[in-house]
Amino acid sequence: MLDVWKTKETSTENCASPSCSLSEQAIVWVGGVPIGGSSAVVIAGPCSVESREQVVSTAIAVKRAGAVMLRGGAYKPRTSPYDFQGLGLEGLKLLREAGDIANLPVVTEIMSEDDVAAGCDHSDMIQVGARNMQNFALLKKLAKTRHPILLKRGASATVKEWLSAADYLLHGGNQNVVLCERGIKTFDHSLRNTLDLAGVALAKELTNLPIVVDPSHATGKRSLISATAKAALAVGADGVIVEVHPQPEEAWSDGAQSLTFGGFGEMMENLRRPLRAVSTGRGELIAA
Amino acid sequence: MLDVWKTKETSTENCASPSCSLSEQAIVWVGGVPIGGSSAVVIAGPCSVESREQVVSTAIAVKRAGAVMLRGGAYKPRTSPYDFQGLGLEGLKLLREAGDIANLPVVTEIMSEDDVAAGCDHSDMIQVGARNMQNFALLKKLAKTRHPILLKRGASATVKEWLSAADYLLHGGNQNVVLCERGIKTFDHSLRNTLDLAGVALAKELTNLPIVVDPSHATGKRSLISATAKAALAVGADGVIVEVHPQPEEAWSDGAQSLTFGGFGEMMENLRRPLRAVSTGRGELIAA
Amino acid sequence: MLDVWKTKETSTENCASPSCSLSEQAIVWVGGVPIGGSSAVVIAGPCSVESREQVVSTAIAVKRAGAVMLRGGAYKPRTSPYDFQGLGLEGLKLLREAGDIANLPVVTEIMSEDDVAAGCDHSDMIQVGARNMQNFALLKKLAKTRHPILLKRGASATVKEWLSAADYLLHGGNQNVVLCERGIKTFDHSLRNTLDLAGVALAKELTNLPIVVDPSHATGKRSLISATAKAALAVGADGVIVEVHPQPEEAWSDGAQSLTFGGFGEMMENLRRPLRAVSTGRGELIAA
Amino acid sequence: MLDVWKTKETSTENCASPSCSLSEQAIVWVGGVPIGGSSAVVIAGPCSVESREQVVSTAIAVKRAGAVMLRGGAYKPRTSPYDFQGLGLEGLKLLREAGDIANLPVVTEIMSEDDVAAGCDHSDMIQVGARNMQNFALLKKLAKTRHPILLKRGASATVKEWLSAADYLLHGGNQNVVLCERGIKTFDHSLRNTLDLAGVALAKELTNLPIVVDPSHATGKRSLISATAKAALAVGADGVIVEVHPQPEEAWSDGAQSLTFGGFGEMMENLRRPLRAVSTGRGELIAA
Repeated sequence: MLDVWKTKETSTENCASPSCSLSEQAIVWVGGVPIGGSSAVVIAGPCSVESREQVVSTAIAVKRAGAVMLRGGAYKPRTSPYDFQGLGLEGLKLLREAGDIANLPVVTEIMSEDDVAAGCDHSDMIQVGARNMQNFALLKKLAKTRHPILLKRGASATVKEWLSAADYLLHGGNQNVVLCERGIKTFDHSLRNTLDLAGVALAKELTNLPIVVDPSHATGKRSLISATAKAALAVGADGVIVEVHPQPEEAWSDGAQSLTFGGFGEMMENLRRPLRAVSTGRGELIAA
Repeated sequence: MLDVWKTKETSTENCASPSCSLSEQAIVWVGGVPIGGSSAVVIAGPCSVESREQVVSTAIAVKRAGAVMLRGGAYKPRTSPYDFQGLGLEGLKLLREAGDIANLPVVTEIMSEDDVAAGCDHSDMIQVGARNMQNFALLKKLAKTRHPILLKRGASATVKEWLSAADYLLHGGNQNVVLCERGIKTFDHSLRNTLDLAGVALAKELTNLPIVVDPSHATGKRSLISATAKAALAVGADGVIVEVHPQPEEAWSDGAQSLTFGGFGEMMENLRRPLRAVSTGRGELIAA
Repeated sequence: MLDVWKTKETSTENCASPSCSLSEQAIVWVGGVPIGGSSAVVIAGPCSVESREQVVSTAIAVKRAGAVMLRGGAYKPRTSPYDFQGLGLEGLKLLREAGDIANLPVVTEIMSEDDVAAGCDHSDMIQVGARNMQNFALLKKLAKTRHPILLKRGASATVKEWLSAADYLLHGGNQNVVLCERGIKTFDHSLRNTLDLAGVALAKELTNLPIVVDPSHATGKRSLISATAKAALAVGADGVIVEVHPQPEEAWSDGAQSLTFGGFGEMMENLRRPLRAVSTGRGELIAA
Repeated sequence: MLDVWKTKETSTENCASPSCSLSEQAIVWVGGVPIGGSSAVVIAGPCSVESREQVVSTAIAVKRAGAVMLRGGAYKPRTSPYDFQGLGLEGLKLLREAGDIANLPVVTEIMSEDDVAAGCDHSDMIQVGARNMQNFALLKKLAKTRHPILLKRGASATVKEWLSAADYLLHGGNQNVVLCERGIKTFDHSLRNTLDLAGVALAKELTNLPIVVDPSHATGKRSLISATAKAALAVGADGVIVEVHPQPEEAWSDGAQSLTFGGFGEMMENLRRPLRAVSTGRGELIAA
């Protein structure tokens, strides 16, 4: 059985044998797409699945612009029971249909232990949301499936707690784990959360699991998605996952942080551009 | 009189006239080096000035590798009065001498209102440290000097509080202000602080002042400096400031986060390399 | 259907009718013990149920010293899968037996949706732990039971998020909800968490649900339990819940924050003593 | 020379001699009032000194209700340079006059090293504000005066950093130090800050210096002052410092957290009342 830690040193309390760690960069295959390989991936789609037209049009648009996987929420974790709770199984099926039309694998969140089977049936990857990162009962059930899991970091989880949550999946037998940094809760509410890119760099040192970054939830602000996505790739992330909506101002959830189709295209363009030059004391510029 | 906010909208509470804001990207010139222009800058040097040999050798090494400015602490803000407090004026003179030898302008922190004159005499740029970001008496004195100021973000300052502190300098008449993000205090102590690169992106939206990033204090961990410096440039920072020491393991302060000369060279090399490719759903790779 | 908010004003976004709020201090009866009435309650017991002898001796000791309810963990939420996970159903039965012997109702945590029925069968009150405060699937299942629920505040939940989680229970039909503050995650790791007693005072303003305080998890430090328990009652809490163990230094979990039997007796004694006097400018002392 | 730590064990890194710590509860005398003795003190007054009438009427009102010291701000640390900065020396003199009329010693904040002499001349105790807790230049100057100092905890200072800041005063020769907890910055903005009463209990374990609590700044909410003040005394604080204003809704600063004269009287009355009873499993009530 493998555990999450890259080296024996970081896992000495837990791990009995020196050979038990993932010894090299893991690649998680999701519907034919490798995450953690030499190229970074872009996952995109709406926060919530709202209608067939909304999710299909988004799937086609993000595919066209270069996304390799479709995201979309059918079961929505909402602070208040009075808020929109998602379309449920109906949403799951619409997401699947949109993915099939655009030829994109799909990732979606489930929140209940009772929905594990449906999640496996209708998605290529199941997301465990930030609020459920330490829902150990759910993790233990998912560990038995071998289905690819996108494990979001809890809003107040340390890097170690995050990797330990992943360990529930590995320990239970499921190595198809991709980590996702989505911002942490801090004193500064200028943005929705505080994006912890140094934490991503640290996690890359500690584990060989692939890591993607969600700048949409981390910032909550459309205008910052492109720059922070670029920074995520620069720090070593294996990909980004962003929210895209045909008409963000009319989205049922998270409109302020959703990119338009045009905005998504611009982000993809920005990810292609090299970094700015660095002026040096040697009287020259280096193209960073 | 100018204020710190880029647009009238963000400064409506404070600002009487629509023409009072910095209307375009400010460039702050420090000893012949422009900060905030089209090229990013790298500032490097020891945490504390310890000896003539230490600071001169470091100055020469970082200049050779491409740094455009020398940093070094003579007055050290330390949690306990029993810790090393810095060499004081003697350290200031050694730093100046090292800068002159290597032909680099120098930046150094002062902590006392009484040291403003000495700071102006012996440095090209005065640093206001994180602990003094809201030392308004010090800011008001520095505002009268017109000397370039590097204003570090307080460890628990919101982006707005940080820019408002800068406003004390601008309001008092000194527009030569460069902001510096150096990590904030959060629940996660995996690293020394939490580097807030999305906060840098936000600050770039709100103000035209140049912003540099200090990955050394933000992470406290040598092995993460290079990756986080690259991410800082990717997110739009105008430069980075890093700690370098001939023998970090023997440094009188902050050894764990100081780069060796070799490590600094590797970081400069890494800043030159393009980002990794992004795999796209269109069957091609884009060189991000 | 009731909602959690005391007044229409605080719940206007969510609540359709002016008559929907709890209009007066709720009392939740747990096995014959009223929580939220004119007297404060003390709940005590071990962190984990470890053996029959351990839990029975503790039950008798805390009953003798004045506790009105027994706590004990059978399903343990642990950061790592390699840590002790609790005795499970076996532990639940031992807890029940100990409660019966000492004539104390029992409260215990469940973590899985699958354990709701067992929790109802074997306990008088089910605890939802901090990590599961926003496990909405679990809350929805518990809402259907009408069983008394002790809802712990998440370590990074705002007061509003905490009350909104309670709203999942009330909205689903279960009004037998007691809130529990157990410390929040902050930058200061001097103690295990930061006890938020002002947050308790605020919650008392916003809702009529009873609130108890857990100084054991909040501080993680045995020597501070008694003083902080007293402060909790002073701020208006309806009771405290504390960890007690026959031999804390040998506890399988949370030993450092568990009181000995003697220490628990001293705490009960301290809760009986009046506050210190206040010296006044009128030349007299008032016995506060 | 003394240091701040109560026992050798907690100060081993810093302290050379076993006899160097404060060996028993310190009492700091301020204009005839003992802080840290067997009775708790109440310090009250306006946030800012605004006019002679405002501060004199407040001084008389709080004295009548039982306060033993007058507070009031002449130099105001404000986030923006466009905010009211205080009346300065004029305010200092008005505060002194009001204290003399009401026969109350006065405490006031200074922010500049240049104002140390004026602060000593016109006050009985100088406050170092939260923003200046690590303004080491100011602390070193104040250490030389022997004037009583009220050292507020920084909004993001750990307990250890707070006590180490006090050590700058003791190390420099001034033992007349009273600590003040005023809330820390956390993710939860339900209130202005998070009041850390367990931190007060911890600090009482670590040092013999007196500690008072400021529930006004900690909560920012008038209706919670009385309950949190009572909790502060219950946890072991040596007193409280609260803001009082003749007409809070017209205060130039901090109106929302200022008590009216009537509200201050009610708080004093509440501090006199015993804690609520505790119901016990032995069929009796103990009057806690």
